[in-house]
Amino acid sequence: MKIENILTCCDLIEKLKKFWSKYGCIIIQPIDIPVGAGTFHQCTFFRSIDPKPLRMAYLQHSRRPTDGRYGNNPNRLQQYYQFQVIMKPAPHNIQKIYLKSLNEININIQLNDIRFIEDDWENPTLGAWGIGWEVWLNGIEITQFTYFQKMGSLKCNPISVEITYGLERIAMNIQNKNNIYDIIWDKNKKFTIYYKDLFQNNEIQQSLYNFQNSNIEILKILFNQHLFEAKRLISLKNPLIIPSYEHILYATHNFNLLDSRQIISSTERQKYILNIRSIITKIAKKYYQNEKNTLL
Amino acid sequence: MKIENILTCCDLIEKLKKFWSKYGCIIIQPIDIPVGAGTFHQCTFFRSIDPKPLRMAYLQHSRRPTDGRYGNNPNRLQQYYQFQVIMKPAPHNIQKIYLKSLNEININIQLNDIRFIEDDWENPTLGAWGIGWEVWLNGIEITQFTYFQKMGSLKCNPISVEITYGLERIAMNIQNKNNIYDIIWDKNKKFTIYYKDLFQNNEIQQSLYNFQNSNIEILKILFNQHLFEAKRLISLKNPLIIPSYEHILYATHNFNLLDSRQIISSTERQKYILNIRSIITKIAKKYYQNEKNTLL
Repeated sequence: MKIENILTCCDLIEKLKKFWSKYGCIIIQPIDIPVGAGTFHQCTFFRSIDPKPLRMAYLQHSRRPTDGRYGNNPNRLQQYYQFQVIMKPAPHNIQKIYLKSLNEININIQLNDIRFIEDDWENPTLGAWGIGWEVWLNGIEITQFTYFQKMGSLKCNPISVEITYGLERIAMNIQNKNNIYDIIWDKNKKFTIYYKDLFQNNEIQQSLYNFQNSNIEILKILFNQHLFEAKRLISLKNPLIIPSYEHILYATHNFNLLDSRQIISSTERQKYILNIRSIITKIAKKYYQNEKNTLL
Repeated sequence: MKIENILTCCDLIEKLKKFWSKYGCIIIQPIDIPVGAGTFHQCTFFRSIDPKPLRMAYLQHSRRPTDGRYGNNPNRLQQYYQFQVIMKPAPHNIQKIYLKSLNEININIQLNDIRFIEDDWENPTLGAWGIGWEVWLNGIEITQFTYFQKMGSLKCNPISVEITYGLERIAMNIQNKNNIYDIIWDKNKKFTIYYKDLFQNNEIQQSLYNFQNSNIEILKILFNQHLFEAKRLISLKNPLIIPSYEHILYATHNFNLLDSRQIISSTERQKYILNIRSIITKIAKKYYQNEKNTLL
């Protein structure tokens, strides 16, 4: 493939935004707090709870400390990008629209092997689960489809569909690269920037931090302080729903960092998760009770 | 103006990205940690220190707790978007290119009053300063131009130029709105989303948190823990430059939150700033000494 014809990561993002905008999705910006998945974006969390219609799309940087491989695994990263689409109610022909979106980004659905593999999704800290499918492109998962059933332990009605594209996996496929660090992030007349230029050193340093050099005592302090704040803010007479939720995100990130040090027993782990979930459930209820709390 | 012809915030972002891409700028994504200005993005901070050429652009959500006005001031927000352009070395005709970019986003430079007002810039926590200009459009500041002289207390060579567009201010002008909450964020066949739909409730809740309901003791604990971690990680035999820098960003955000509670005396304030700067200086030096630390 000639380099001029290659879709870069930046091209992919633009094409997906344009495509879903045509289907009524509002484009929003990522949240500026580390999250383990695009689902934690405040607009997805809150807006999938209420009854109002919703169509939006955004790119979210996701951090999963335990997935780090010191920058030398060709397929795994502890920070990567998810392109998220949320639609409520879910269009009946959503699978068809999704397949069209693949054509838009140079994935010929006639020439490639595309499979929908049943894979229900659960996020115990978010108090969320959904029925869903992984989408496999020639044997590699590139997308997750989820119909949210519960969020913040509340039943979703109507049900939202979430589509999560794995940006780097898709780029590897359409750029025909075996190593994630070799994908082209962006190019113009002056520069061609590879994924490794932007992220490989970050992967090395963050892996060292996540697995070996983080300070367990401090992570615990940070977790506890943020959890305490989340609980306090949602328990106020006039609860501060968004600030409370943000403290939960910080707490969750610190929990993920602790988890990657492998020092939490499975019983303790369960306790951490339940602590987060009980506050998230409270936040979800307060949001649901207050119609004014729109974010979109 | 007919609604069909209005450039939304999303249109502005896209047009600016395309424009600067033509001039060799690589498009990158925002940092997922709260920052007070786009300059704190790790790529800008680190890459303006080293001698290698650089052209990039990105949108950064910026949080300035003291600027909150409980969602009822038509011009002021405690969270807003900055469109950032960084070029090193600075092109000699950068002012001309910038004026072209205004034409691109429907600002006729013949019909509007555009002035460059000298305004040098300093960021004491970053150990940074630059000579620069504010750009005024019909009496309102819409852009900041800065030629970085120092970053992390190190002399920049060659010098980078940073252009910071205030997204909301520009949107108000080209959409002809007197109230920031009335600007159109995005529109498509199905939805028209105003700034207030996305952000007004957030402004109210965050202002309540920032000015009245944050927990001063906890903010101090968070500040101290993050500062301690930043210092520890940069002092390792093999210093972890990026994780250390991220802890500085968290510390700085907590300092900004403390500052908005107006409980810090001016002497204490100076101490906080010096503490942050001394570590940032160390981080900058370690980065400069290690050629491998590219982020772009």
